Amino acid sequence: MTSQRKESVVLLIQCKDRKGIVARVSGFIHDFGGNILDSDHHTDEETNDFLMRMECSTEGLQIAPDQISEAFAPIAKVFEMRYEVHQTSRRTRVAMMVSKQDHCLADLLQRHRRDELRIDIPLIISNHDTCANWADLFKIPFAVCPVTKETKPEQERHVVSLLREQRIELVVMARYMQILSAEFLARVGCPVINIHHSFLPAFIGANPYRQAYERGVKIIGATAHYATQDLDEGPIIEQDVIRVGHRDTVDDLVRKGRDLEEIVLARAVRRHIERRVLVYGRKTVVFD
Amino acid sequence: MTSQRKESVVLLIQCKDRKGIVARVSGFIHDFGGNILDSDHHTDEETNDFLMRMECSTEGLQIAPDQISEAFAPIAKVFEMRYEVHQTSRRTRVAMMVSKQDHCLADLLQRHRRDELRIDIPLIISNHDTCANWADLFKIPFAVCPVTKETKPEQERHVVSLLREQRIELVVMARYMQILSAEFLARVGCPVINIHHSFLPAFIGANPYRQAYERGVKIIGATAHYATQDLDEGPIIEQDVIRVGHRDTVDDLVRKGRDLEEIVLARAVRRHIERRVLVYGRKTVVFD
Amino acid sequence: MTSQRKESVVLLIQCKDRKGIVARVSGFIHDFGGNILDSDHHTDEETNDFLMRMECSTEGLQIAPDQISEAFAPIAKVFEMRYEVHQTSRRTRVAMMVSKQDHCLADLLQRHRRDELRIDIPLIISNHDTCANWADLFKIPFAVCPVTKETKPEQERHVVSLLREQRIELVVMARYMQILSAEFLARVGCPVINIHHSFLPAFIGANPYRQAYERGVKIIGATAHYATQDLDEGPIIEQDVIRVGHRDTVDDLVRKGRDLEEIVLARAVRRHIERRVLVYGRKTVVFD
Amino acid sequence: MTSQRKESVVLLIQCKDRKGIVARVSGFIHDFGGNILDSDHHTDEETNDFLMRMECSTEGLQIAPDQISEAFAPIAKVFEMRYEVHQTSRRTRVAMMVSKQDHCLADLLQRHRRDELRIDIPLIISNHDTCANWADLFKIPFAVCPVTKETKPEQERHVVSLLREQRIELVVMARYMQILSAEFLARVGCPVINIHHSFLPAFIGANPYRQAYERGVKIIGATAHYATQDLDEGPIIEQDVIRVGHRDTVDDLVRKGRDLEEIVLARAVRRHIERRVLVYGRKTVVFD
Repeated sequence: MTSQRKESVVLLIQCKDRKGIVARVSGFIHDFGGNILDSDHHTDEETNDFLMRMECSTEGLQIAPDQISEAFAPIAKVFEMRYEVHQTSRRTRVAMMVSKQDHCLADLLQRHRRDELRIDIPLIISNHDTCANWADLFKIPFAVCPVTKETKPEQERHVVSLLREQRIELVVMARYMQILSAEFLARVGCPVINIHHSFLPAFIGANPYRQAYERGVKIIGATAHYATQDLDEGPIIEQDVIRVGHRDTVDDLVRKGRDLEEIVLARAVRRHIERRVLVYGRKTVVFD
Repeated sequence: MTSQRKESVVLLIQCKDRKGIVARVSGFIHDFGGNILDSDHHTDEETNDFLMRMECSTEGLQIAPDQISEAFAPIAKVFEMRYEVHQTSRRTRVAMMVSKQDHCLADLLQRHRRDELRIDIPLIISNHDTCANWADLFKIPFAVCPVTKETKPEQERHVVSLLREQRIELVVMARYMQILSAEFLARVGCPVINIHHSFLPAFIGANPYRQAYERGVKIIGATAHYATQDLDEGPIIEQDVIRVGHRDTVDDLVRKGRDLEEIVLARAVRRHIERRVLVYGRKTVVFD
Repeated sequence: MTSQRKESVVLLIQCKDRKGIVARVSGFIHDFGGNILDSDHHTDEETNDFLMRMECSTEGLQIAPDQISEAFAPIAKVFEMRYEVHQTSRRTRVAMMVSKQDHCLADLLQRHRRDELRIDIPLIISNHDTCANWADLFKIPFAVCPVTKETKPEQERHVVSLLREQRIELVVMARYMQILSAEFLARVGCPVINIHHSFLPAFIGANPYRQAYERGVKIIGATAHYATQDLDEGPIIEQDVIRVGHRDTVDDLVRKGRDLEEIVLARAVRRHIERRVLVYGRKTVVFD
Repeated sequence: MTSQRKESVVLLIQCKDRKGIVARVSGFIHDFGGNILDSDHHTDEETNDFLMRMECSTEGLQIAPDQISEAFAPIAKVFEMRYEVHQTSRRTRVAMMVSKQDHCLADLLQRHRRDELRIDIPLIISNHDTCANWADLFKIPFAVCPVTKETKPEQERHVVSLLREQRIELVVMARYMQILSAEFLARVGCPVINIHHSFLPAFIGANPYRQAYERGVKIIGATAHYATQDLDEGPIIEQDVIRVGHRDTVDDLVRKGRDLEEIVLARAVRRHIERRVLVYGRKTVVFD
C-alpha cells in the first residue's frame, strides 16, 4: 500500500453498471499519459450499482492534478457518475472527538506521529478535559465543549462551527460517548467515522460489553462505521474480534476490547484516508 | 486432551461457592487412591455459582467407577451440590438430526470413523431422505420422520420415542431445519446441541446469511449452543468467525459458513462428550 | 465470487511494467463488446513485474471465447507478455494424489459434489489402496501405484502417463506422502498443488506436528503451495493457523491440523481453478 | 482474571508427577482457612513433569502471606518440588529496555497508567536517547547506556548493576535491538522477556519482515519468549498472527507487525506478572 507514498491521484466513481466503463476511464487516464497503479471495481448484481477506485501515478501525467476533476466531467455525465478526485499528496484534515477514555485517541495520535496516516489533525474536541494532556503532548489545539441534555443543540452548533473553521474533511469519534443528532450529521459537511465497542449488529446501544458478558458469548468484537442518523446502523467499514471465556469479567472484556477498538478504528481511518471506501445504501465497498 | 484416552473418571460439580470445596473433593479422590489428571473450577462472583470439573485416572483407584457416584453423595449433600460422574471409557450414545444439507452430518460421521470422538451413533433422524446415503455408508440406522405444520406434535412424539428406545444421551441438530417445540425439549430427556449459522446474538432467526449480506458485515460466524425453548437464545458452547467482503454474494457466505458450521459444531460436541461444559443460567463454563 | 458462475473469460497476464497496459487490455475487451466483471493487477516495485487478472462476461461478446487468445497475441507481443485465456465454463481436469490419510481427499470430493468447484476429477492416484472407498462412493477411477525407493523412477513415469492420458490440468497432492522428484515435476506438464502440515517456512520436512510440539509453539498452521524441486520451498498460495496449548499432545495437533489442512488446501485449489493465482519468482499474487 | 485484584496468594509448583499432590496442596491451603480461587495443573506425559498454579484468597487466611513459603517447605521436600509464593497485592518491579522504536514501550506505559498491570516501572534503559520523551511523560528514570561492539561487556555490567540497584524482578525487552550475552543472562538475576517480530521458529535472526516478504508468506506473526543464550530459541509465552498479501511492502509488514508486537508482548508480560507461566525445558505452560 505504499503506492500512497508516491505522488498519485485516486479517482472514486459510482454509477449504475453498463458496458465500457473500465475501458473509458482507463482510456481517459492513458490519454493524459497516466500510469495506472491500482484499479479495482465492484458491481452489485442485486442493485446494479457499479463502484470503482482507480489510482494513477502523477509522474509524467500531462494534466495538473487539480484539473482532472473538470476534465473528467464529460465522461461522468455520459455515465451519470458521482465521482471524486483525490491527490494522495494532500493530507486530509481530520478532527478527533473524544470523551474521557483516551486509548483510541492516543493510538491514532501515535500513528500520526509515526506518519502511518497522511493526515493533519488541527483539532481535538471533547466534552471533558480529561484528554488535554495528549493534545498538549502532540501540540494540537484542544477544544473543551461540555454538553448537557439542555445545551446539546447549542453545543453541537458550536462544534460544527469549529469543524468548519478548520475546514475539517473527516471527523473521527474516538470513543466520543455522545449520540450525534440528525441535525449535527446533516450540517457537519464531512463524513464521521465512529467506533462501536461490539460486533454489530449484536449489542447495539449502551454497555455492549455488559450485554456480551450476560449473553455469555465466546467472542467479542468492535465495529468501525460511518455515523448516520440511525444509531449503530451506519455502513460498516471494518470489524474484528477476539476470544473471551468464562473467566473474563466485564472489566476483562473492556480491557480486551480496548485493543480491538484501537486497531479497528485505525484500519477504518486508514482506508478512508486512502480513499478505499465507497458507501452505497447501508453498505460499503472496501478496495484493499 | 488425550487424557480422555486413558481410563479416567470425570466429576462435574455445581453448587454455591464456599470454602473448602476443592480440598474436600480432591481429598475424596485421594482417599480412594485416585490420581487427579486434570482439575479446573470457576466461581462466578456475581452469582456466587461454583462450577468444577475434576478428572482422575482409574488406574489404582480403590473403588469401582460405577460406585463413585454413591460414595460421593454425602459430600454432595453437605455442599448442596448437583453432580455427575462420567467414565470416559463409556461411549456417549449420540443421535444426529438432519434435514437436507449434509455437510455437518458428513463431517461428524468422518470424525466418528477416525475415532476423534468417544461416541456411538445408533441413530440418524431426518425429516427428509436426502442424507440416507451417508447413513448407508457408515451403516447407521436412518429414520425418516417427515413433518408438516399439522403433523409436528405427532412427529415429535415419534422422534422422542425413537431417541428413548435407543437410550440416546445427546441429540445433535446437524442443520436440522425445524424448530423443536418446548414440549419436545421437555420430554427429550437429554441435552440437545444446535448449530446456528450466525454469530449470535446477531442475526437470530431465518436466513442469517441473507441478513448478514444485507447488513454489510465484514465478518460472519457460527454458533453452537444448547437448544432451549427460546429460539437461538440457548447457552452458547462455541463460536467462530471468518472474514467476508463486498465480493461475497449470499451464496459465498453460505459456502464459507459451511466450513465454520462444521468446525464449530464438532468442537461443541467434543467438549460436551468430554464433559467439559457446565450450564448455569443462560451461560456455559467450558473447561478446556 | 459467483461471477465464476456466469459465462465469463479470464485473462491472466504477466510482463514487465510500463505505461498503458491496463488501458490497452481493457480497450481490447471493450472493442469486442465485452463487459469487464472484475479486474485487478499488481506491480512489484522491487522487480518491476506487472501481473494482471481481468474477467469479462461472454454475454454480448463479439468474438468466440476460443479465438480470444489468438486475437490478443499482437498486444502481448508489444508488451512482451506471457498470458493465458481461460473460459470459466470449462471445468478444469484435476487429478488427486493421496496416500493413507483421507481427510483432504474426502473434503475436496464433497466440495466437488456440492459443485463448489468447477472441476472434473477423472482420476485419483494413490500409493496405497486405503482410500479406494471414497473413489467408489464418488465413482471416480482409482489407480493404485505402489512405490518403493527402487521403483520410484518407474512409478513416477507411470503416474505421468496416467495424468497425460486423462489430460490432467492440475494435480492436487491431498496428503500424498511421497516427495516428487525433479524429473516428475519437469515432465508432469501441469501445476501441482501440495498441502504442507505446518506454517512454512517453520517446520520444513518430516513430522512437522512433532517438531511444533517440541518447540512449544502456541499456534500451528498449514500451507498450500505449488510443488517445486525444492521441498517445501514452492510459492505459497494460502496459509492458515489455529491456537494450541500445553494440554495438546502431538495427536491433538494432528487432529486440529486436519481441519486446517482441508480448508487451506480447498482455498488454494479454488483460487487456482478460478485463475486467481499468478506465480513470479518464489512468490504468488492472489487476486481475491 | 480480576481475581488478581482481590488480595490473593499464588503458589507455583513444579516437580515430578506422583499421586496425591493436588490433594496435599489443597489440603495445606484448607488447613489455614484459605479459599482456593483458581487452580490448574498440567502433567507432561512424555517427561512426567508436574506443573501447578493455585491461587487462594487471603481473606480469612490464618497465616501471614509472607510465612506461607516457610510453612510449605516440608510438603515441598516430600515431593521434591521447586515452588514460589507470590502475593498478588505486591507489584512486580519491571525494567524496560528499548532502542529507537518506541511503540512497545509506549503501549506498555499506557497499560501501566491505566493500571492494567500490577507493576512498578522504576527504570527504563536504552542504548539511545530517542525514547526519553516517554520516560519524561510518565516520570520514570531513563538511563541511556550506549553500546558498541567494544564496550558491550562493560555496558552490560553497568546495566546489570542498574537493574540490581532497583531490585528489578522482570526485564522486558520492548524492542531492545541488541543481543544479550550469555554472561548478562547469567548475571541478571531475573527473567527477561523478549518480543521477536516473527512467528518463531520461522525467520529467526535479523530483518524477519524482509525475510517474510521475500518468502511470500500469507501470514506474519510475533512471538514473546523468555530470553536465553540461544538467540530466538527461548521458551515461547505467546504468539499471534495477521494476514498479509501481495500488495503489502516490507514497510507495510513492519507497520502491521507493530500492532502485533505490542499486543503479544503485553499479553506475555501480563501472564508473567500474574504468575501464570511456568517454564520447563524449552517450553512453557501458560495457565490462563
